[in-house]
Amino acid sequence: MALSDLRDVERNEAGIATVVGILKQRLGDRFQTGQSIREQHAHTTTYIPNQAPDGVAFVETAEEVQDIVRVCAEHRVPVIAYGTGTSLEGHVNAPGGGISVDTSRLNKVLVVNTEDLDCTVEAGVTREALNSHLRDTGLFFPIDPGANASLGGMAATRASGTNAVRYGTMKDNVIGLTAVMADGTIVKTGGRARKSSSGYDLTRLLVGSAGTLGIITSLTLRLYGIPQAIAGGVCPFPSVEAACRAVIQTIQLGIPVARIELVNALQMRAMKNYSKLDYPESPCLFVEFHGTDDGVKEQSALFGEIAAEHGGGPFLWTSVPEERAKLWKARHDAYWSSLTLRPGAKGLSTDVCVPISRLAECIADTEADIAASGLIAPIVGHVGDGNFHVLVLMDMNDPAEIERAESFVQRLNARAIAMDGTCTGEHGIGQGKLAFIEREHGAGVGVMRAIKQALDPLNIMNPGKMPG
Amino acid sequence: MALSDLRDVERNEAGIATVVGILKQRLGDRFQTGQSIREQHAHTTTYIPNQAPDGVAFVETAEEVQDIVRVCAEHRVPVIAYGTGTSLEGHVNAPGGGISVDTSRLNKVLVVNTEDLDCTVEAGVTREALNSHLRDTGLFFPIDPGANASLGGMAATRASGTNAVRYGTMKDNVIGLTAVMADGTIVKTGGRARKSSSGYDLTRLLVGSAGTLGIITSLTLRLYGIPQAIAGGVCPFPSVEAACRAVIQTIQLGIPVARIELVNALQMRAMKNYSKLDYPESPCLFVEFHGTDDGVKEQSALFGEIAAEHGGGPFLWTSVPEERAKLWKARHDAYWSSLTLRPGAKGLSTDVCVPISRLAECIADTEADIAASGLIAPIVGHVGDGNFHVLVLMDMNDPAEIERAESFVQRLNARAIAMDGTCTGEHGIGQGKLAFIEREHGAGVGVMRAIKQALDPLNIMNPGKMPG
Repeated sequence: MALSDLRDVERNEAGIATVVGILKQRLGDRFQTGQSIREQHAHTTTYIPNQAPDGVAFVETAEEVQDIVRVCAEHRVPVIAYGTGTSLEGHVNAPGGGISVDTSRLNKVLVVNTEDLDCTVEAGVTREALNSHLRDTGLFFPIDPGANASLGGMAATRASGTNAVRYGTMKDNVIGLTAVMADGTIVKTGGRARKSSSGYDLTRLLVGSAGTLGIITSLTLRLYGIPQAIAGGVCPFPSVEAACRAVIQTIQLGIPVARIELVNALQMRAMKNYSKLDYPESPCLFVEFHGTDDGVKEQSALFGEIAAEHGGGPFLWTSVPEERAKLWKARHDAYWSSLTLRPGAKGLSTDVCVPISRLAECIADTEADIAASGLIAPIVGHVGDGNFHVLVLMDMNDPAEIERAESFVQRLNARAIAMDGTCTGEHGIGQGKLAFIEREHGAGVGVMRAIKQALDPLNIMNPGKMPG
Repeated sequence: MALSDLRDVERNEAGIATVVGILKQRLGDRFQTGQSIREQHAHTTTYIPNQAPDGVAFVETAEEVQDIVRVCAEHRVPVIAYGTGTSLEGHVNAPGGGISVDTSRLNKVLVVNTEDLDCTVEAGVTREALNSHLRDTGLFFPIDPGANASLGGMAATRASGTNAVRYGTMKDNVIGLTAVMADGTIVKTGGRARKSSSGYDLTRLLVGSAGTLGIITSLTLRLYGIPQAIAGGVCPFPSVEAACRAVIQTIQLGIPVARIELVNALQMRAMKNYSKLDYPESPCLFVEFHGTDDGVKEQSALFGEIAAEHGGGPFLWTSVPEERAKLWKARHDAYWSSLTLRPGAKGLSTDVCVPISRLAECIADTEADIAASGLIAPIVGHVGDGNFHVLVLMDMNDPAEIERAESFVQRLNARAIAMDGTCTGEHGIGQGKLAFIEREHGAGVGVMRAIKQALDPLNIMNPGKMPG
C-alpha cells in the first residue's frame, strides 16, 4: 500500500484540448493555462505529488460553473473545484488533468439575516472575509480550521477545527446550499428553516463530498452571537495522558468549553521557537471559554481545578483580546512551525478521531509507536472531539524512513477504526486516505460508489478521489 | 391535486403469494396475515386511507430483515418498515401490498457508553423504553415527538418535537446506524467518533429516508446529562402574534430555552376540556428551561419579562416534577384532545416550518386563512424552531369542505415555501405531502430520484412514497 493512493485517471487528450480551446474563447483572461498557475491549483501542502490541471477557470457566477461543467461533460473532461488550496489530502489534484474551477471570485456575501442568525454567501468567501463582513452585526461564524479557507471548500471537505467541540462542524452549520451537478443542473438544497423532514438530506450528502458529486457555488450558514466574554489560557501537564484525562473530565462534566487543544512536548518546542513565545516544553492544553464575564471566570476556575487533579498547571488564562490572539496565532501556526523541526522534510498529516473515552489510550499508544518507529512526528489535537493530528516529517530521499512512516500510519488508522473511530475527523479522504476507506466503511463504500455512479455517470467530477 | 397523493404501485400478485408462502414457513407464528393485524400495520392516524400490507413479519434480528429483503427482492415484492405506526403522513401504508417488517421485537438496548455520552439500540426500542433504561445513568435521550415512537422510526422520518429548539432533531442525534439495503446488504454507517470527514454522509442520507432506501435495524444515539433543574410554565398572550414576537426575542437573546410551544386559543379550549386543567382560553406559550437551579430561575424570570413586554402573562412556572409532568402531558395529548373538538371528523395535519423571523407573519396569515375558509383547525407549534401544526378537522362526507381544506393546505405550504421554509418540519413527506415535494425542491427531486433508483432499482423499499 502506498502512503497515498494516487489512482490512475485516464487522460482524455482530445477532449481536454477541445475544452481548453472553448474555455479560452469564452472566458478570455479568466481562463489561464500557464504552468505556474496550474501547479498552484494542484496539491501544494504535503508530500502528495502535485498533479496539475490543464487550465484554471476564474468563475464569477454559478451559471459560468454550469457552463463549464456542461462543456466538460460533453467532452468527458474532469472538473475540479478549487477554494484556497489548503487541503492536506490532495483533494485539488488533477490525476487525469482537466479544468480547475477557481471559486475565489465567487466572493460576495449575498445576505445576512440577523433575526434568523444565518447568512448566504458565495462559495469563494473565506471564513475571515465573512467574519470581517459580520463585524458590526454582533454575529460571527465560528468554524475555524486554522487556514483561512473558503467556505465552499470547508463545506466540501466537512471541515471543522479548533472550536467544533462547542459549535459543531460544517455538517452542523451549513443549512442549505446551491450546487452545480455533473449534468450541469443547478440544485438548491435545504432552505432557511431551522429543521426539515422534507426529502433526502441533499445538503449533508454534498457537505463532505469533496466536489465528487457537484460543485458548491453558494451556501447558507448558521451564525452565532459573539460571546460577551472570551477567556483563554495554556495549561502544562506532566504527560499527554494526564492532559487527555483532564479533557475527558471537562467534557463529561458538561463544561461548555469552546476550544480545548492538545499540543505535545515536541510540538510545543516547535511553536515556542517559531512564534517566539515563552511556553513550557511539556504537553499543554490550549483552552478557550465563551460566555458571560462571570461564566468564563467560573469555567476557567473549574478547569484549573480539574487540571490540578490530574497533575497539571498552573493554568494561566486571560480575557484580554490581544493576549488571547497571540496565544491562538501560535496554535494556528502549529502546522508551519512543525515543519521547521526538520527543514527540507515533507509533512504527512494524520487525522484520526476516536470516541473520547478511548482518546488517552489512543494517543499514548501512538506516542509509543512514534518512538519505536524512530519517526519525528509532533502531535496536536482537537481533543475535545477525540481528534488529533500526527505530522510525520519525512526525508523523502530515505525509502526506509518512508516505509516506516507508511507502516506507522497504517497502524494508527487501524487503531482508530478499531476503537469505533475514523481515519479522518476533518481533513477528508481525498487521495491521501483513499487506501483506508474500505477498512472503515466496509459495505458502505459500495453504497457510496452507487451514489457516485448515479449522480456522475461520466466520472468527471473530481475523479480519482473518494469514493474511488 | 388530491389532499394526499396516493400514487399507484402495481400489485405483483404472484410475487406476493410466493413471498407470503416462504415467510410463513420461515417465521411461523412470527409472520401474520390476519386482516386486523395487517390493517393495524398500515396508516391509522389521519384521514389518509388505510392500505394494508399482505403480511406482517415480527423480526428479531437484522439477519432476519436481510433475509426478508432478499426474498422480497427476488420476487419483486414491496417491503415496508414499521416502528409504532405513529406517522401522520401514511409512511407505513402499502399501496402495492407487500410485507410489513415490524421492528417491535428489535427491542434491545445494546450498549450505553456513559463516558462518551452515547448508546446503541435496536431500531424497535421506543424513546420511553430507552429513557427508562437510562434512568440510573444520569443521562437521557431528549428527542420527544410526542408519541412514544420507536427510535428507528424517529430516525427514518427525521423526527424532532418539543425540545428540538435546544437538542436538535434526529439528524443531529443519530451518530451512526446499521441498515439493510434493498439488495440485502447490511451497511454500518458512521462510528462513535464525535466527528468525521470520511466519505459520503450515509447516516444522514438514511435519516429521513423513511425506509425508501434501507431499513434501519440499529442506531447509535447521542445522550445528554439530565439537567440538575427543570422549570416549566404556561404564559397566556393577547394574540398569537404577540406570543410569536416573544418567542423570536427569546431565541435572539440566546436564552437557552429547552421547549417553547405555542398553543392557540381553540387548541387551548380542547386541551382544557380533554386534560381537565385550569388553563386560560387564550393563545399560550408552554415553556421549559433546563439547567442549574439558579440558571432556570434566572431564565424563567427573563422570559417573564419578555412576555410582559409583549402584553403576555402572568407567566406561572414550577420546578416541581409532578406539576411539570401534568402540564406537558396535556401538551403531549394535544393531538388527541383536538380530535374531540369535532367528534367523527378526520384530522389533516400540516407541518410547515419557516425561518423564525417570518413566523409571526406566517401564523397570522394562516389564522386569517382558516377563518376565511370556514375551517375548524386548531394550531400548536414548536415555535422556537419556526415549526407549527394546523390540524384541519374535516367532515369526510362533505366534499365542499374537503375541497376548502385542500385549497387551504396548498396555500399554507406555498406560503411557507415562499418564506424559505418547508412544507414539513418533522412529519416527513410520506404520502400526505408528496404533492409538494417538487415545488419545494425543484431540480433536487431529480437528484433524490437518481439516488433512489441507484440504491433500490427494483423499487421494493416502501414504494409510492418520497421521492415518488
